[in-house]
Amino acid sequence: MSQLFELVKSCTQTKARAGTLVTSHGSVPTPLFMPVGSQGTVKALAPDDLRALGAGMVLANTYHLYLRPGIETVRKLGGLHRFMSWDGPILTDSGGFQVFSMGHLRRISDEGALFRSHIDGSEHFLTPELAIELQEQLGADIAMVLDECPPYGDDFHAMRRAMERTHNWAQRCQKGHRREGQALFGIVQGGIYAELRRQSASFMTSLDFPGYGIGGLSLGEPKELMHSVLDETVALLPEDRPRYLMGVGSPEDLVACVAQGIDMFDSALPTRLGRNGAVFSETGRLDIGNARFKEEPGPIEPGCDCYACRTFSAGYLHHLFRCQELLSYRLTTIHNLRFTMRLMARIRQSILDGTFAEFRDAFLKRYQPTDADVRAEQKRKWLESRRGKPIAEG
Amino acid sequence: MSQLFELVKSCTQTKARAGTLVTSHGSVPTPLFMPVGSQGTVKALAPDDLRALGAGMVLANTYHLYLRPGIETVRKLGGLHRFMSWDGPILTDSGGFQVFSMGHLRRISDEGALFRSHIDGSEHFLTPELAIELQEQLGADIAMVLDECPPYGDDFHAMRRAMERTHNWAQRCQKGHRREGQALFGIVQGGIYAELRRQSASFMTSLDFPGYGIGGLSLGEPKELMHSVLDETVALLPEDRPRYLMGVGSPEDLVACVAQGIDMFDSALPTRLGRNGAVFSETGRLDIGNARFKEEPGPIEPGCDCYACRTFSAGYLHHLFRCQELLSYRLTTIHNLRFTMRLMARIRQSILDGTFAEFRDAFLKRYQPTDADVRAEQKRKWLESRRGKPIAEG
Repeated sequence: MSQLFELVKSCTQTKARAGTLVTSHGSVPTPLFMPVGSQGTVKALAPDDLRALGAGMVLANTYHLYLRPGIETVRKLGGLHRFMSWDGPILTDSGGFQVFSMGHLRRISDEGALFRSHIDGSEHFLTPELAIELQEQLGADIAMVLDECPPYGDDFHAMRRAMERTHNWAQRCQKGHRREGQALFGIVQGGIYAELRRQSASFMTSLDFPGYGIGGLSLGEPKELMHSVLDETVALLPEDRPRYLMGVGSPEDLVACVAQGIDMFDSALPTRLGRNGAVFSETGRLDIGNARFKEEPGPIEPGCDCYACRTFSAGYLHHLFRCQELLSYRLTTIHNLRFTMRLMARIRQSILDGTFAEFRDAFLKRYQPTDADVRAEQKRKWLESRRGKPIAEG
Repeated sequence: MSQLFELVKSCTQTKARAGTLVTSHGSVPTPLFMPVGSQGTVKALAPDDLRALGAGMVLANTYHLYLRPGIETVRKLGGLHRFMSWDGPILTDSGGFQVFSMGHLRRISDEGALFRSHIDGSEHFLTPELAIELQEQLGADIAMVLDECPPYGDDFHAMRRAMERTHNWAQRCQKGHRREGQALFGIVQGGIYAELRRQSASFMTSLDFPGYGIGGLSLGEPKELMHSVLDETVALLPEDRPRYLMGVGSPEDLVACVAQGIDMFDSALPTRLGRNGAVFSETGRLDIGNARFKEEPGPIEPGCDCYACRTFSAGYLHHLFRCQELLSYRLTTIHNLRFTMRLMARIRQSILDGTFAEFRDAFLKRYQPTDADVRAEQKRKWLESRRGKPIAEG
């Protein structure tokens, strides 16, 4: 295929880069944030909403679509783009992460992963070859190799074994991959161990993938550790390939990780937080359910150009959220994703203008990250809500 | 105020009429179906959706808004139109129906109704004067008098007592009503008793309201009984005032009741059914969760111009519904309301063309009403779902 990534400009003070991803379904600017559409829908939104808020590429989960409705059904309904009615680019993950985090993993071997469906308990065997076949049938613009992603806290030896398996699987994925116009990304693993990260980056780049995912981060490790591992890893990745930090998406992390040389991100955080009433603003997260919004005639965030802020008072959104009205989930999702898209656009523009370092410093100074306790409490609520649909997200 | 209703054409073979309602927020054609936005939002839809699917006037519930967020809050946020960001006409009910059906009624007297909130158990006293004051503060284009609406099955004497109270309350409402540009409708009660209906129609018309609601029907009585009571009632209402059959909204009832001379309808049925996966088609309701839609590449209903049918396959909608994805509720709601709006437009056009009787016969011949058992089962599911938000609707 033609070149996937064009590097447009590099920041001279940080490792930030502005570029373009060129896919069969159009080009998208980087740094890029991808909203997550696990089951073939970005929760609460229609494709028109995604276009209106400026989404470029979306992510869909192979694991979810494999279990329901089944990849063959998606194929019969015209492939994933037609299925979702989304004509922009789509990236699919390999399914590995969900097999390990959601599915009930029964046995992992060099051959593949045997797991039980979280929906009906049925047993399935995911191999690297199958992960590729499924993503080819879905018709993603970017597919990911199957990787083993152990939880944070596993020791060096467990991490090394998982990494070596990931390397072996990456080779098998590459060998099995055939679909024209679909780019296959390698994934660097190695947990929090700098030595393993270096080995993994070096091995993956030797396979010459058109882009590289960085997996196994943002899994509960301290932020400083994530950033230092990221520095080690990115330093070994080629300049001319996009770097995709998987599962990261808080505003402060996006800004900080772009500065470390990351080009692509995905995370369910903005959409999940929105459904739980946490909305982004320039100064940090706000809780729309808070009583101070009850009679607020202005928008959630003055100056925001999203549909929710242009159309409704924060008082109305507070009311919808308190009433658990379905419209609430859509509007807060729109706001959070639009906030994120505008953030990415401002990041890119500042890189082009040569002012990214100042932008980063000013943003991080003003934006108050949610403290660890609040995050833990939100996570608890979220896990609880997974028992009762439709707030949950995989 | 200037004249509310303009009668454009009457059918010569039935009692159907085509007209126009002229309000401070624009004119809408009749016969008219009003989507229900109980809590200041038509469940799962934004005002843009309502406009796109051709909604003219929407209904909001005084009871719900009174309890949450409170009428004073709505007033501070600019009144109901600004609150909902809906600049078309709005009709509010008086709150009476919900007090009797949802609230925990504690005591009813000639003075008013003492009830407990279904949300927090707090005690409130609703009088005719308060019902008017609340609706004036909301700024509805059409307000309704407070009525007592006993359940189907109450005996003649209970019905007569409730009717007489309703008459007394209507007078007090009329006396208390002041808001310019807001029309106040009387409501005919009397249950299934033709004699009471005649008395009530005659009393209400003596008060010379700009329009008349017909309450206390579609509460579980056999359909034949509803139609015969309706005939008795409508015959006594003035030609030059709109007639509003409250709480009716199935496609077959809309067509049949227009033929009996009804101009306005409201019902949560199309939206509630949609959220439960029952979608309208020319031949009757379809269950989008049915396995036969799993691999259906065509739309729910071929030829339908709604956003859902134009954009997605029935297979995709089936998938969303099975996954309890939030987008599912929005899309099926859009479809059912658009189906209903198109039905009303076709009804009106056929009245204007002088072909309504044929249209009615052809529609009712082709449209298979859901049988009583299925309806009962759907109602059961709905009542069950009221325990777990956000499917419920009041």
